[in-house]
Amino acid sequence: MIEKLQEIVGAAHVLTGAEAEPYGWDWAHERFEAPLAVVRPASTGEVSALMKLAHETRTVVTPLGGRSGMAGGGQGEGSLVISMERMNRIREIRTGARSAVVEAGVILANLHEAVEAEGLIFPLFFGARGSAMIGGALSTNAGGSNVLRYGNTRDLVLGIEAVMADGTVIDLMQNLHKNNSGYDLRHLLIGAEGTLGIITGAVVRLMPKPGAYVTAMVGLKALDPALSLLNRLQEVTGGAVEAFEYMPDTYLADYQAMRPETRRPFEEAHKVNILLEIGALSPRDYTPGPDGQMPIASYLEEVLGGMLEEGEVDDAVIASSEQQRREMWAIREAASEVAGLRPNQIIMDVAVPVDRMGDFLDRADAALARMDPRAETSVVAHLGDGNVHYTIFPTDPAQKDVLVEGIEDVVAELGGSFSAEHGIGKLKLTTMARRKDPGALAAMRAIKAALDPKGILNPGKLLP
Amino acid sequence: MIEKLQEIVGAAHVLTGAEAEPYGWDWAHERFEAPLAVVRPASTGEVSALMKLAHETRTVVTPLGGRSGMAGGGQGEGSLVISMERMNRIREIRTGARSAVVEAGVILANLHEAVEAEGLIFPLFFGARGSAMIGGALSTNAGGSNVLRYGNTRDLVLGIEAVMADGTVIDLMQNLHKNNSGYDLRHLLIGAEGTLGIITGAVVRLMPKPGAYVTAMVGLKALDPALSLLNRLQEVTGGAVEAFEYMPDTYLADYQAMRPETRRPFEEAHKVNILLEIGALSPRDYTPGPDGQMPIASYLEEVLGGMLEEGEVDDAVIASSEQQRREMWAIREAASEVAGLRPNQIIMDVAVPVDRMGDFLDRADAALARMDPRAETSVVAHLGDGNVHYTIFPTDPAQKDVLVEGIEDVVAELGGSFSAEHGIGKLKLTTMARRKDPGALAAMRAIKAALDPKGILNPGKLLP
Repeated sequence: MIEKLQEIVGAAHVLTGAEAEPYGWDWAHERFEAPLAVVRPASTGEVSALMKLAHETRTVVTPLGGRSGMAGGGQGEGSLVISMERMNRIREIRTGARSAVVEAGVILANLHEAVEAEGLIFPLFFGARGSAMIGGALSTNAGGSNVLRYGNTRDLVLGIEAVMADGTVIDLMQNLHKNNSGYDLRHLLIGAEGTLGIITGAVVRLMPKPGAYVTAMVGLKALDPALSLLNRLQEVTGGAVEAFEYMPDTYLADYQAMRPETRRPFEEAHKVNILLEIGALSPRDYTPGPDGQMPIASYLEEVLGGMLEEGEVDDAVIASSEQQRREMWAIREAASEVAGLRPNQIIMDVAVPVDRMGDFLDRADAALARMDPRAETSVVAHLGDGNVHYTIFPTDPAQKDVLVEGIEDVVAELGGSFSAEHGIGKLKLTTMARRKDPGALAAMRAIKAALDPKGILNPGKLLP
Repeated sequence: MIEKLQEIVGAAHVLTGAEAEPYGWDWAHERFEAPLAVVRPASTGEVSALMKLAHETRTVVTPLGGRSGMAGGGQGEGSLVISMERMNRIREIRTGARSAVVEAGVILANLHEAVEAEGLIFPLFFGARGSAMIGGALSTNAGGSNVLRYGNTRDLVLGIEAVMADGTVIDLMQNLHKNNSGYDLRHLLIGAEGTLGIITGAVVRLMPKPGAYVTAMVGLKALDPALSLLNRLQEVTGGAVEAFEYMPDTYLADYQAMRPETRRPFEEAHKVNILLEIGALSPRDYTPGPDGQMPIASYLEEVLGGMLEEGEVDDAVIASSEQQRREMWAIREAASEVAGLRPNQIIMDVAVPVDRMGDFLDRADAALARMDPRAETSVVAHLGDGNVHYTIFPTDPAQKDVLVEGIEDVVAELGGSFSAEHGIGKLKLTTMARRKDPGALAAMRAIKAALDPKGILNPGKLLP
């Protein structure tokens, strides 16, 4: 087997033993899972040859990106790990068509840098962008902080290339905005967590880079006025709000304790803290007026001023420099670290309809207080998307499943999803079995069996 | 069989003989296909019972919406036609969450009317909106004139409900912007043309209704300056262009001949005519200034004025009333009638990358001139999406397949799609077999066999 792998990718790119060990961990760091071997193909042809071999020999395969997944989808005990790290070329940036052709191993931050040089952005931003790869982002349909304006990963993908379980290459690398030619395999493979095929390349959409950003931290007493702030800003800017992130006072206190050297955003603590960012696309919004101020900043000031007067907003700081903007984002992007400050974290990544977020938090807190009165939480939310990361620190880790189920009941009551942006992986299989529509689960199993009849592609993930 | 059908939907809603006859035709009107019977269920439960019966008896089923499909997907000789016309309830309009819950039989124009009363729009607009139903629009992933700003049908759908081949109901009626919980069956069923399941309901996204529209007809000499007009407008408005439709001089002449009572948009003929519309979302764009003019109209005038001076634009008319706006749209929306003026039309609905449209038209015209020098054409395009409806009137109808293949070669050279927004249905099966990526076709067949093992759902459509 090892010899055959070496023939395909070259001896230097088949790792075993100690060399393979780092690939047995992923971000979630729950436990080590030793790979059979790690291979690092350099081309779609090599991935295809690897899959042909795996298919013939019934070898179980784990496709691997940047190992920043939150659900354990990139680990597989005893499996052949196919790491996409060498397929890291940005094949083409087409400024006229506003698209880029990329290989699966391109690191998100590298793509960001390359397209910004052309005055464009690839608007998929999240904390792990320095390690996460395009292939992993597509396979998990990653979300992040800009979904409000630009959509999830799947909304940013025009075409894909993938290698199926038997090594067949599917080439759907279209650079088109309309293409109704059969079942949308692109959307089937996006979010399939590597269980139906290995995504090897993609044509992604690029967007014009806003001429200016206006970023602010806002302190309020409750979520309702926060949502009304969002609505007013969307109206006055014509939908230019790029991010609208919620952090409660407890989260800011934890952050402050972790990084005592940082500036506090406000003198006093506020129950609800919003990090918001508006991106000005047209020159009339970012060209400074006679007063030297950008119109987009004036709009924000007007809205905030009005809400301060009405007593709906308690305090607000508008970033006056790129440095200050980065400090504001650093608070929000430390969420994983903050959640990791205490042991036994249970990270729940759930979504509810946008207008039910306040309800959700009230009911979830109440349910938790009933189940485990001394439990603590760490909460952040992409408020504009209805997506909340509700992290529980239980008094008794053995109660994990009971607590998860209790909070999931609240999610279900509100018509929400038990998995918003992190996916299922290994960590949410129990929930998937318990909560997913049974008809949908049956259809998923039929599709899995049809496309991967030997069950070699990332088994034990996504499907209970 | 008929008795059992009557038990499920009631005797009044099982049609046979002359009553069933109108259901044997669809818009394309190629030929009559007599149904076995037509049933009109009133609920998802009834559709489920019908499919259970069809599955047990191996009865072939054709799901039917508004019969405005362009590819023959809604006809099935000897099949049980399930018409969704009675499932026509708008179950809920949630203004706060900007979404609506609709049944599959809701006519598009009725949904438009209902949500506009709430200051919202459902931004899926095309000529057949007075008869097309939601279920059909989803099943074909309909496009239309506003894809440029709002995306295709699939981009407007948050959740769906569907009945599978064996009668299983899949309930994925989420009102969520993030939901990574397994394979995206929603996107698999959207665009599947009723071959994998029958869509019975949907949660659709609504958008704020622009405070004002500015609509114009622009005459130019070539496509390149038209694309630069689009880019300039997108920049100055921050992406507020809602439609950017191309019509050549020949199309306008045909329209004028068909409706001699209508006003010509321009005194003189122009090779390239663009119907464009900008939607102003924020009050600062549509609130009239001291000169009584809306800023959004001023932006358009400035851009057009500049391009007139530079000689890139030859003429332009901005609609000064709703009446004039409707007249402009009436020209574009008569495309189907104009194409039907001459016999033996071959409607090609293809897409190319946005920046290759000029290339495509030049090469397609040249290829056609080589193959059939006396052939005529009727062309309209959603220029902003790279989607062109290239209709050929051949001198010899028997040459249809040769001509189609010749134009498709041009599409393929430019990395385009042989089916942009109309879908495959029956009419494009040959092309699908000839042009679709073989690996993708194999995966589609495997999925079809897995989800509809008896092959009873709309057979003979989509998959060659």
